[in-house]
Amino acid sequence: MRRWNGWGDESVAYPLHEGALAFLADRIGAGTPFADAPFDAACASLAPSRLAGLQPPAGVALHTDAPTRVRHALGQSLPDWLRLRYGCIGTAPDGVAFPESGADVRALLDWARAQRVTVIAYGGGTSVAGHVTAQPAARPVLTVSLARLAHLVHLDREAQLATFGAGVFGPDLEAQLRAHGCVLGHYPQSFEYSTLGGWIATRSSGQQSLRYGRIEQLFAGGTVETPRGTLQIPAFPASAAGTDLREIVLGSEGRLGIVTEATVRVSPAPQYEAFHAVFFPGWEEGIAAARALAQARAGLSLLRLSNPTETVTMLALAGHRRLVGLLERWLRVRGCGDGKCMLLIGVSGTRAQARSALAAALATCRGQRGRHVGRMLGDKWRQGRFRNVYLRNAAWQHGYAIDTVETAVDWPRVTATMQAVEAAAAQALAGCGEAVHAYTHLSHLYAQGASVYSTFVYRLAGDFDTDMARWRALKGAVSAAIVANGGTISHQHGVGTDHAPYLAAEKGAEGLAAIRAMLRHFDPDGMLNPGKLVTEPA
Amino acid sequence: MRRWNGWGDESVAYPLHEGALAFLADRIGAGTPFADAPFDAACASLAPSRLAGLQPPAGVALHTDAPTRVRHALGQSLPDWLRLRYGCIGTAPDGVAFPESGADVRALLDWARAQRVTVIAYGGGTSVAGHVTAQPAARPVLTVSLARLAHLVHLDREAQLATFGAGVFGPDLEAQLRAHGCVLGHYPQSFEYSTLGGWIATRSSGQQSLRYGRIEQLFAGGTVETPRGTLQIPAFPASAAGTDLREIVLGSEGRLGIVTEATVRVSPAPQYEAFHAVFFPGWEEGIAAARALAQARAGLSLLRLSNPTETVTMLALAGHRRLVGLLERWLRVRGCGDGKCMLLIGVSGTRAQARSALAAALATCRGQRGRHVGRMLGDKWRQGRFRNVYLRNAAWQHGYAIDTVETAVDWPRVTATMQAVEAAAAQALAGCGEAVHAYTHLSHLYAQGASVYSTFVYRLAGDFDTDMARWRALKGAVSAAIVANGGTISHQHGVGTDHAPYLAAEKGAEGLAAIRAMLRHFDPDGMLNPGKLVTEPA
Repeated sequence: MRRWNGWGDESVAYPLHEGALAFLADRIGAGTPFADAPFDAACASLAPSRLAGLQPPAGVALHTDAPTRVRHALGQSLPDWLRLRYGCIGTAPDGVAFPESGADVRALLDWARAQRVTVIAYGGGTSVAGHVTAQPAARPVLTVSLARLAHLVHLDREAQLATFGAGVFGPDLEAQLRAHGCVLGHYPQSFEYSTLGGWIATRSSGQQSLRYGRIEQLFAGGTVETPRGTLQIPAFPASAAGTDLREIVLGSEGRLGIVTEATVRVSPAPQYEAFHAVFFPGWEEGIAAARALAQARAGLSLLRLSNPTETVTMLALAGHRRLVGLLERWLRVRGCGDGKCMLLIGVSGTRAQARSALAAALATCRGQRGRHVGRMLGDKWRQGRFRNVYLRNAAWQHGYAIDTVETAVDWPRVTATMQAVEAAAAQALAGCGEAVHAYTHLSHLYAQGASVYSTFVYRLAGDFDTDMARWRALKGAVSAAIVANGGTISHQHGVGTDHAPYLAAEKGAEGLAAIRAMLRHFDPDGMLNPGKLVTEPA
Repeated sequence: MRRWNGWGDESVAYPLHEGALAFLADRIGAGTPFADAPFDAACASLAPSRLAGLQPPAGVALHTDAPTRVRHALGQSLPDWLRLRYGCIGTAPDGVAFPESGADVRALLDWARAQRVTVIAYGGGTSVAGHVTAQPAARPVLTVSLARLAHLVHLDREAQLATFGAGVFGPDLEAQLRAHGCVLGHYPQSFEYSTLGGWIATRSSGQQSLRYGRIEQLFAGGTVETPRGTLQIPAFPASAAGTDLREIVLGSEGRLGIVTEATVRVSPAPQYEAFHAVFFPGWEEGIAAARALAQARAGLSLLRLSNPTETVTMLALAGHRRLVGLLERWLRVRGCGDGKCMLLIGVSGTRAQARSALAAALATCRGQRGRHVGRMLGDKWRQGRFRNVYLRNAAWQHGYAIDTVETAVDWPRVTATMQAVEAAAAQALAGCGEAVHAYTHLSHLYAQGASVYSTFVYRLAGDFDTDMARWRALKGAVSAAIVANGGTISHQHGVGTDHAPYLAAEKGAEGLAAIRAMLRHFDPDGMLNPGKLVTEPA
């Protein structure tokens, strides 16, 4: 069963070994474990449901019991975790509906509008920016789970288009496509529990976006139920016919409607796929090679460059101490000692394409003194590509919090932005005498620049208010550093509540006003997911 | 000097040779030449300028003389041509302003709003859908030419970003980039006279979009002056921070603001580039190969497949009768006789990339009995890539009209759409006893489908009303065929006035309402380019 107060399935654990704990203790001090609040206590803390007495639209399941409400109250942001782990749920939805068709969603929206009920669309609940969290409000809150709209509706192999219910989880989507020899190729780290509709609503990006594109490139059309009515977007290979309506839906974060079905661009499953690791003596060489590869139209399917701190951290947390020791000695005599950086390179396609793309990429890497170490670390990464998130569960058990932020900036600003974010994090908890272990990788590389994805590990206080204050201090400091360096406030996680205060910095007053006008057009009563994406104007 | 009533420079002519005229006479009958209206008569036909007495904003040039007004009154659609050639200009702008900065544009918009003047943004006047044509209206009409905002503002070679004034013409933009070893790579057939701002406002696509992407992929950010204020869009490599404001500007067709500066994604000039021709026995084989190449991530820079009629027509119009005869004999013994189709394949990049991409592509072609004939026809195409438009001048001199339509559909519908458009065209003028010579190519290929670009040649009557009626009959018939086959009403030319009636078919009522809401938000008085993109609601 899915964990109610953390990531993933309850039966899955990736414990931290002694070496990893020693590494963390050395960096930021030993953590102090403490007990989480039990599920029953969290359920008992909820206010009574204001939807309990109401009759939902015919045939649509509406659950107002506390367990269901708790399980759909929050996402996976660190403040969401704090609320779950400490049992301080706060505002929860008054009920959760489980529509089984687009018509059910249509009926729910009409019903909610008539009943003056706020509606929050819920996919997999994996938001790390507060997208699914109910705000305290006078109106009752209905969360609409898309879990039952999850099947393959249509597949056109000639046009390489597939239509799915928007609530389909990543693995289920890929499994249904694999049965026909196809893939979508969208692999965010949340893949196991995030949904197609959620990817669209938050402009998600997957680990192999270098090959398959972001969700913006994969989303070809679909159906969106809005308070005004149904928006049907047909799929064209391309069109110059005015505004692209898909772009109004992408990143709309549940504020103008609910995506019920989406048509996506699929590919034949690649004949061959491999991930290789290359080490560089330092960051300068690593980023030079990474940029050259990103700008070379090199036909790769993944590029992921860890900075020196992340490289050290990954090797320390990996286990296999002897093997890692051998690798490090081998690398050291070849110029990759302290300060070394690891680059992962993915190749996918026909064997011939993969072979020639890899050969060209390794030649570029050699030009920056890169040392190819083969596929072993790449295979490790592939095995663990969706498991890193489980690390958060393990760290919590030892009294540590893990949080991440991400942005994207042009190449000339990548290094400065990374340094500013890490420096801001390192100082953020100095006031309470706590250290932050910060490390970074570039995971989505473009000809123009890269995403900058930083991870922070620090100690939990074991007290809700203190830990919330620590998170606020850290989040505020690193977000300010992103904005000061001209980065977008999110490359792949969306805005939600947590990034909304920083949106004006990149959209400007006129940009924000335009977004608000579009939301108001579709949702004149403001019944959909209020407080997310844009804060309401004062 | 630029031709006032046709395409291109007055000094450039590509006359039709005898063989070409015989080919057309055989298909649709001999044309009857007639005299065009002189420029002076067109000027004399204008109503007096309603802006003549007004004082423009300080420092901004405003011309209200008839020659300037006539030269900015119309684009390059066939009805625009009829109005020019017959001297029936109809509604013209009351004046043309030539701002020299974004501040000038800002001042013009504020001035126009205060004076209740309608504003039409004007780039290169190459629209083939009526974008720059003034509508009869009570308010005076000011055309704002961006011709003096045409320089390179900033180039960042590390980030591969260049910022230009939006009025820069294609050749000037590329020349300024070439000086720094870069290219944009956006080559619509209108390249010589179309502008960066125009490409953005109409969602243009270039001949090598397979490599460089559509203007949507190239446009990274910029400045848009709107009646509400200035919209500044910063350039990010990618962002998940809510609505992508670029997408509100793309395809807005001058209705929500005027793009004054745009930042575009540039590339290093390719080391090597070549275009090869392959012939197939028939359409079935040609489209099978083209689709396979488009879906193979093959690293090509151009794919262009002519159907049998276009292949015959191109060879007949090419001249070089003996050479073509030899080629056709060579092809015939290799299975490519009547019904043969020509595919052009472009390869760009490093020599190694080009070599391996070409080898793989030719192998795919051989699988469909494709016959590679080398680079000669590809070189011819490259030389003439922006000259085909001049053919319209030459044809007109002999009493023929040439018009085109284009759409994009998924692969399963490509052939049926092509056939339906050609069949509709062939019958469209049957009522007046005239034949239409229709031929088609696929010029923008995607994994999901292709653009379908059809050309029509038919005889002019030599009379404005009759020729306008013929155009209406033809345009209506082929547009209806596009809509009936589920195609977009434009893959690359935009909507303007000519495609506006068909927009509802693809956007739906809710989609159109959303577009209207966004235009209303930016332009509450409806002062910008009324009647284009969306018709006003009844």
